[in-house]
Amino acid sequence: MADDVFSRIVKGEIPAKKVYENDKVLSFVDIAPVNKGHVLVIPKKKYETITDMPEELAGELFRAVHKVAKAVVKATNAEGYNILVNNKRASGQEVPYVHAHIIPRFADDGFRFGWRTLKYEENEIDDFQKKIRSFL
Amino acid sequence: MADDVFSRIVKGEIPAKKVYENDKVLSFVDIAPVNKGHVLVIPKKKYETITDMPEELAGELFRAVHKVAKAVVKATNAEGYNILVNNKRASGQEVPYVHAHIIPRFADDGFRFGWRTLKYEENEIDDFQKKIRSFL
Repeated sequence: MADDVFSRIVKGEIPAKKVYENDKVLSFVDIAPVNKGHVLVIPKKKYETITDMPEELAGELFRAVHKVAKAVVKATNAEGYNILVNNKRASGQEVPYVHAHIIPRFADDGFRFGWRTLKYEENEIDDFQKKIRSFL
Repeated sequence: MADDVFSRIVKGEIPAKKVYENDKVLSFVDIAPVNKGHVLVIPKKKYETITDMPEELAGELFRAVHKVAKAVVKATNAEGYNILVNNKRASGQEVPYVHAHIIPRFADDGFRFGWRTLKYEENEIDDFQKKIRSFL
């Protein structure tokens, strides 16, 4: 199977508009932005999702996100920004190579995430709490 | 002005369904979930956005996100998950206290983030790249 686009960018087989790079991570401008100035941050080693990465490397990835987000906000004069990582197809992930989106936002940008809220039945939230805790 | 809800949770003034805690961060079940099992991770010290935090603490926050996300996936048998941080009102942030969402996802959960893609004019992407780089 052919490599995905991010693997090919890391290997230098296809170009990318790089904005930041260190030994572990790479950041470049998304060519199909939600708003202009939208960038991606990826680890140089391929993992499908955040939880597939070692915890230490996930920390490194997000330290880079923190650094790059500051620059994106300054460069675009953004009024806010989203940091989003979709993990696996069911979440909306389109390339199976972990990537953090940094999306500059403006009050009048006309973009909104869909959102919804569900309600827990009585005590149901406690069951979820217990079950999640049991894996921590 | 009254404290926001997350400050009050950290102070122990209002209860929360805690799932994880260390000296720097706290994680609890969101009472108004996109899907059941949706949790939040916050720093114990209040900052409005990720970039307001010291880089080191942002790394710590996301190491906790990594740890808790694994547990959320196991507890809910999620087929995927979103990690989302909205920063400032223009991005959709509703409580001005930085919080990372971990949202368990299922192919049939009926929830979709709105998404759109803009197109860059010729060379415009290079201008964004240069400008962002100039702040890094």
